Amino acid sequence: MQTDRPLDPIGVFDSGIGGLTVVAALREILPSENIFYIGDTARVPYGGKSRRTVERYGIELGGLLLAEHAKIIVVACNTASALAVPRMRDMFKVPVQGVVAPGAAAAVKSTRNKTIGVIGTRATIASGAYEHAIKALDPEVRVVSAACPLLVPLIEEGMFEDEVTDRMLARYLDPLRSAGVDTLVLGCTHYPLLRTAIARAAGPGVSLVDSAENCALAVRELLANSGIAAPPSRLGKLDVALTDATEGFLRTAAKALDLEIGDVALRSVQEVQKA
Amino acid sequence: MQTDRPLDPIGVFDSGIGGLTVVAALREILPSENIFYIGDTARVPYGGKSRRTVERYGIELGGLLLAEHAKIIVVACNTASALAVPRMRDMFKVPVQGVVAPGAAAAVKSTRNKTIGVIGTRATIASGAYEHAIKALDPEVRVVSAACPLLVPLIEEGMFEDEVTDRMLARYLDPLRSAGVDTLVLGCTHYPLLRTAIARAAGPGVSLVDSAENCALAVRELLANSGIAAPPSRLGKLDVALTDATEGFLRTAAKALDLEIGDVALRSVQEVQKA
Repeated sequence: MQTDRPLDPIGVFDSGIGGLTVVAALREILPSENIFYIGDTARVPYGGKSRRTVERYGIELGGLLLAEHAKIIVVACNTASALAVPRMRDMFKVPVQGVVAPGAAAAVKSTRNKTIGVIGTRATIASGAYEHAIKALDPEVRVVSAACPLLVPLIEEGMFEDEVTDRMLARYLDPLRSAGVDTLVLGCTHYPLLRTAIARAAGPGVSLVDSAENCALAVRELLANSGIAAPPSRLGKLDVALTDATEGFLRTAAKALDLEIGDVALRSVQEVQKA
Repeated sequence: MQTDRPLDPIGVFDSGIGGLTVVAALREILPSENIFYIGDTARVPYGGKSRRTVERYGIELGGLLLAEHAKIIVVACNTASALAVPRMRDMFKVPVQGVVAPGAAAAVKSTRNKTIGVIGTRATIASGAYEHAIKALDPEVRVVSAACPLLVPLIEEGMFEDEVTDRMLARYLDPLRSAGVDTLVLGCTHYPLLRTAIARAAGPGVSLVDSAENCALAVRELLANSGIAAPPSRLGKLDVALTDATEGFLRTAAKALDLEIGDVALRSVQEVQKA
């Protein structure tokens, strides 16, 4: 069915809307590519769920993207990148790109004192995926991690500048400050929307690393190496689908990220049989 | 397949673990009944999702309970009670009991100044289900509602006694205090776990109403009227299944509610075809 690989879309999915930060970076770096984005808003959030369930969700969402003729699948969700990418690579023939490896590489490049902080959902932090990826690049780096389970709800409430958010950030980040991290990985695609408050809480001299831009660069390389990049002359389009029709936060995020989104389609998730 | 209705279980479901507050009330009032509880932890929370999706989830969970030979289905989730019960009643032959009507009745019985506050998830409050049910019982009552979207995440983090929780409660409840409510409906089955902090924020002289006990009384009446109550001499058992294997908060809640839970089973949700 793949009649025209270069014009087939880059398929991107996230548990919800946070992955649009990755879409914004893709549009910046690869403006001629079509993008098909699916947010699994019917089952958001993934961050407190088990590996087995997140793996299943990744395979199901990947299947929806393949049905849209995706030529590559971008997992724009840190929890799914940390937990589901290996199984997705086993199952799908198209390349699967997560956000953890690019984020880890950027952090290793950024740190001066070899002390990196990582914040993310409970599932992402418990997986140890960032720590593993960072240590694989430089075993001498010390990694200090903190699960921040309330940040996604606070962001989805739009509480970007709020004393309650600041208090929670202080609680989550104080141990990382004390440990002397000079680089902080925003290990959840929601977090760039809270960048200003996070920078304030992390303190001066701490570089914030988000995976979005590095993930988009990795996608560009994958497309070039596979010879399936879209011709540079054209202007790509962005299609968005959700598994539940709750558009409130979608519009807020799209505006904050300066993304053009037309009609939003609905997709039904077909459950795959468990092994 | 229904060979022995009186010993068939009462089927109870919730989006997650909060519905165990209803189970605790059922065990207290109906100790001889078997109970089969399913928490849809793979898709929790429901509170920010659309009516159509919550209806579908209600029908799917109801189907899982019928597969366990449930003789009655108790929707121990305010969001699903507000949004899904009418369609479930259309589809299922067994009685379907939600928590909204019993909570509304208890609130109308409790208020002296005919001013009732209702707190719940965004979806529950937007549905107007409590306001509708209260006005149907007494059109003169004034209802003041507030969506409290951060309370479920705070409760699931176990932040029962915490200044951040107190600040969010003050923000949510101050308008209800100013409106002079003398009765406050805890319109989410998670909220009884936060009763102490809610009572403090609501101020003295405000009666807190939760639906759990009144829902259990309604179930007792339904079973008696249908002639399918279990014989009073026996001791019923409680079985728990989850759609995702994340047991952390289950154990916390069960302990807080003094519930005996053995092994926890896993159930896979089979998506129903959309109409």
